[in-house]
Amino acid sequence: MEFQDCFPVWNKLSAAQQGSILAGLTPRRIKKGTVIHSGSMDCTGLLLVRSGQLRAYILSEAGREVTIYRLFDRDLCLFSASCMLRSIQFDITIEAEKDTDLWIIPAEVYRQIMEESAPAANYTNEIMASRFSEVMWLMEQVMWNSMDKRVAAFLLEESAIEGTDRLALTHEIIANHLGTHREVVTRMLRYFQSEGMVQLSRGVVELLDEKKLRALAET
Amino acid sequence: MEFQDCFPVWNKLSAAQQGSILAGLTPRRIKKGTVIHSGSMDCTGLLLVRSGQLRAYILSEAGREVTIYRLFDRDLCLFSASCMLRSIQFDITIEAEKDTDLWIIPAEVYRQIMEESAPAANYTNEIMASRFSEVMWLMEQVMWNSMDKRVAAFLLEESAIEGTDRLALTHEIIANHLGTHREVVTRMLRYFQSEGMVQLSRGVVELLDEKKLRALAET
Repeated sequence: MEFQDCFPVWNKLSAAQQGSILAGLTPRRIKKGTVIHSGSMDCTGLLLVRSGQLRAYILSEAGREVTIYRLFDRDLCLFSASCMLRSIQFDITIEAEKDTDLWIIPAEVYRQIMEESAPAANYTNEIMASRFSEVMWLMEQVMWNSMDKRVAAFLLEESAIEGTDRLALTHEIIANHLGTHREVVTRMLRYFQSEGMVQLSRGVVELLDEKKLRALAET
Repeated sequence: MEFQDCFPVWNKLSAAQQGSILAGLTPRRIKKGTVIHSGSMDCTGLLLVRSGQLRAYILSEAGREVTIYRLFDRDLCLFSASCMLRSIQFDITIEAEKDTDLWIIPAEVYRQIMEESAPAANYTNEIMASRFSEVMWLMEQVMWNSMDKRVAAFLLEESAIEGTDRLALTHEIIANHLGTHREVVTRMLRYFQSEGMVQLSRGVVELLDEKKLRALAET
């Protein structure tokens, strides 16, 4: 898969614009677990995922994490290039959750194309609106839903992403996704186990009753 | 103040685009307390504030509220026109916090201009990024900060907006801004009073020690 296939407005760019993107592009292979971008870094550039999986999260001063969104094949990450838009006033950390192939587009190249090209600017708008929607969903979860529902929803989401009921996840990792403490997750999972919804073993959560989990997540 | 003065990219639009905006524009005077847009309504259109103050909030099924951002003079509200961008997948309610003069721009008119005009699309991008930053700030507050800090930060923000230390606010209103229960706010304000930070009377919170409140909000 080439860059052109992953960038939906490619055909709406001029030859000069296409040329300047191709000239600026850096392909990178990122190992699972690597932090590609963090708030304190310089403007890393936009990341276009060729294949793999990235996680964007925020970090508290005390080191707690909460996952904001995930990026999959063909997804473009804007917020690793916050220097591109002066109104982006927050720090995000991006980590590879799986081995990931991606392209880095320099922020300055992208900013210039966006300035000239309405299709590129509108594409960027759609991406931002879509991330915004994910953050608003998370906000509603955090504000109105108790932790049991959030853990249930997270397990179902993971199961859908991984395509399996057997999830290789420590309690620590789940806590970092949800912005809570490991102890809280452990207590919740044990309760789920006592209700027959999951089976716990070292580093593994196996979903036994997806229907019951879904009922809990959606009430 | 005319529409043209409140819309920064006006001079970058073509005469035809300017004409279609002016033809579509509806000026409206909204009384304090009126809900202009709610999630269940049709696509209301974009709102450009001429003068006044709007509040955007989300609502839980149980009727709890939390303020997402405020709009002041010259601010443009995109999310009352969610039909404009298909990636906007959340519902927001917009209410006038003060008597407000505004213009409504039909979503379809704006969408078409944004499609043709890179300056309009980029302006929209900056607005979205700026609201995104506000939501991320709120997310960090909700995730990492305890309610005492959030109440202190809210009182300081209100005092800055209103330009006074004497705030006409019921505990219920504060709770609706912060997404919590009235009782929680009452308990917190009584604690602040016992610490000499505020003075409470019916429907009024008076800030007595801004420095101490700020120290609390920022630790």
